[in-house]
Amino acid sequence: MRQSELFTRTIKELPKDEKSINAQLLIRAGFIDKLSAGIYTFLPLGWRVLKKIEEIIREEMNKIGGQEILMPALHPKEKWETTGRWQVEEMFKMKSQTGREYGLGWTHEEIITPLVKKFISSYKDLPKYIYQIQTKMRDELRAKSGLLRAREFIMKDLYSFHSSEKDLDKYYEKVKEAYFKIFERCGLLEYTFLTLASGGTFSKYSHEFQTITPAGEDTIYICQNCDLAINKEIKSEINTCPDCGGKEFKEEKSIEVGNIFKLGTRYSEPFGFYFKNEKGQDQPVIMGCYGIGLGRLMGTIVEIFHDEKGISWPNSVAPYQIHLLDLTSTNEGHQQAERIYQQLKKKDKEVLFDDREDISFGEKLVEADLIGLPYRVVVSQKTLEKKSLEVKSRAEDQVQLIKIKDFLKQC
Amino acid sequence: MRQSELFTRTIKELPKDEKSINAQLLIRAGFIDKLSAGIYTFLPLGWRVLKKIEEIIREEMNKIGGQEILMPALHPKEKWETTGRWQVEEMFKMKSQTGREYGLGWTHEEIITPLVKKFISSYKDLPKYIYQIQTKMRDELRAKSGLLRAREFIMKDLYSFHSSEKDLDKYYEKVKEAYFKIFERCGLLEYTFLTLASGGTFSKYSHEFQTITPAGEDTIYICQNCDLAINKEIKSEINTCPDCGGKEFKEEKSIEVGNIFKLGTRYSEPFGFYFKNEKGQDQPVIMGCYGIGLGRLMGTIVEIFHDEKGISWPNSVAPYQIHLLDLTSTNEGHQQAERIYQQLKKKDKEVLFDDREDISFGEKLVEADLIGLPYRVVVSQKTLEKKSLEVKSRAEDQVQLIKIKDFLKQC
Repeated sequence: MRQSELFTRTIKELPKDEKSINAQLLIRAGFIDKLSAGIYTFLPLGWRVLKKIEEIIREEMNKIGGQEILMPALHPKEKWETTGRWQVEEMFKMKSQTGREYGLGWTHEEIITPLVKKFISSYKDLPKYIYQIQTKMRDELRAKSGLLRAREFIMKDLYSFHSSEKDLDKYYEKVKEAYFKIFERCGLLEYTFLTLASGGTFSKYSHEFQTITPAGEDTIYICQNCDLAINKEIKSEINTCPDCGGKEFKEEKSIEVGNIFKLGTRYSEPFGFYFKNEKGQDQPVIMGCYGIGLGRLMGTIVEIFHDEKGISWPNSVAPYQIHLLDLTSTNEGHQQAERIYQQLKKKDKEVLFDDREDISFGEKLVEADLIGLPYRVVVSQKTLEKKSLEVKSRAEDQVQLIKIKDFLKQC
Repeated sequence: MRQSELFTRTIKELPKDEKSINAQLLIRAGFIDKLSAGIYTFLPLGWRVLKKIEEIIREEMNKIGGQEILMPALHPKEKWETTGRWQVEEMFKMKSQTGREYGLGWTHEEIITPLVKKFISSYKDLPKYIYQIQTKMRDELRAKSGLLRAREFIMKDLYSFHSSEKDLDKYYEKVKEAYFKIFERCGLLEYTFLTLASGGTFSKYSHEFQTITPAGEDTIYICQNCDLAINKEIKSEINTCPDCGGKEFKEEKSIEVGNIFKLGTRYSEPFGFYFKNEKGQDQPVIMGCYGIGLGRLMGTIVEIFHDEKGISWPNSVAPYQIHLLDLTSTNEGHQQAERIYQQLKKKDKEVLFDDREDISFGEKLVEADLIGLPYRVVVSQKTLEKKSLEVKSRAEDQVQLIKIKDFLKQC
């Protein structure tokens, strides 16, 4: 992509009302735009990051047998009355011209349970794993922290359906692994801890994946022996680590980047979702649910991977891998930079090409640091004299002078 | 995909309240599920069709310089008051816990205009082409016709920004071509006519792309000389074809599958979106907008491509290319079918494998016709005796016996 054609650009002034680092950097660098508190547009660069995250999640969900669907955002009131959750205050509610009442989905148990019920009648039809990547809305009292707590947000929500608790337990462990894989691929593994949180009527605890950063709204206590963490909300109930018996914990601020929950029959019973077991008896289907917020994950990545100059994207989710900067000042120089851009494109490299002519070299360098692509590649009169390029990893300080030929061969 | 694992199945009973062919077939065949009038879930097969359509549209938008973003569905009231459109009755409206009023976006001029304004100040920044593929909501008085008129629907909406009418005119023609390309790739070209429709204050006419089918809610008059069509809503103003002067028209029922519109300064003026021209004078930006509904396109494809047995998907949008039916009755037979499935997968073929053991051969054949994948490939004891497969195109009647080896080589 040519930066001269990109309709966005970096913004110098800090947005006044955005206190969070992720929103500040993402807005300044031109990844997102704030429409209203907790409501953001994903601009071309931000949209690409979102798509990378989406694809990582999709791949890992498919690997554990997930079948992808797309459920609506508009939910009829009746479904939510069935479970007694219509009253939840965080649900946006509205009345149509025809007098029907709708709520905007902030989760989809009330939709997927009666949906899947239509197709499943016997133990032979179970288990099933179904997910979507979909836009949700929540009437947050205080939308703050940028992408970490938004009023409109994209979620991956997976639901599993089982004929026994044992089968749910088995799949639950599989999802845990898939989640760790997702956070690993997004570069967050070493900062992310499996965390016990409050459960429901069906299970004593649920699990969260908490990524430690000062920007976190949550507090967790990490067992210094086995790394299992405990959410503050249940810490008072727990003195020793339930996994290893450890007694030493470290307090950390953290962001909940994922959560998994054994729902049991909480939703299948009100919707009358029963299956016939091997003896021909009716039993309620046992469910699990598993969520990851894509925007929140993107915001978390920025909270972890940034410095005073800007963002420093992990390769896996960077909108482009290479930021090619034309810092030449002659026609011949521009042509050389253009040739390198074309050759990188031919090699299917993801390149953002700063070919803008009305921007100073200094500004280009500052903006490259702000945008934070993994590799900055500079073509200047100086490097061209040596038939070379200057390559720098965003995460490191050293600059390498590499022959153009060699660079194009290696990369 | 193994059909034994797919959580959906075909449904025998016609949905009572669905009168449209597209909804009836898509629901019966397991592509969509109706949550409420005008509100549908896309099931695994339907989700795949949607993704195919999305990718075709995305590719053609990128080819004409479109930059993809993602704007929110939740819109603050103020933006819509700026243009005087807050009162539109088809807009779902709601109040938050904090007392703020939001509407749900059914189009995005009120969002994209102030957004793009932030980044554009000079004629040098123009033109720009920006699109999204996003879920919209509209409070339809009567949601009917299945996917053709939904309350929640996915749209591709492209907006273009220009410094002159001439430049808009040029791009408008480019979009026309891209739209025809999209409809061609979806198999609809020969049924789809460029149609004059009412314009706005800026241009006398807008253009629609109308696909003729008895299921259409619109009526168009096609010039028998040059194929330009005229929407009934403006037919009374027009006696001769504005393009060729032709006087003979054929009346047809049709579905509006796309529309393109010269907005002029209708939105840039109220939002104060001006640019500096070459002389340094302020001028309002000139805009165009271009929409395609993805679900509606999917529904239209079904209205066109079906017969009494079911759907008959064009290759380009079929959820899978090959429906492999195991109609064998021995272990050896099942193993053979399995081997063929594995080899097709190895060749990256998109295959739906009907490996279900509790379904009769007759049912499998009936369901294959209903689901309507382009190629049905049957493995049976009879074909295996001849080391062959039976291949049938959904759109044709003839069945071909082909040696397994040859089939795997050719396909």
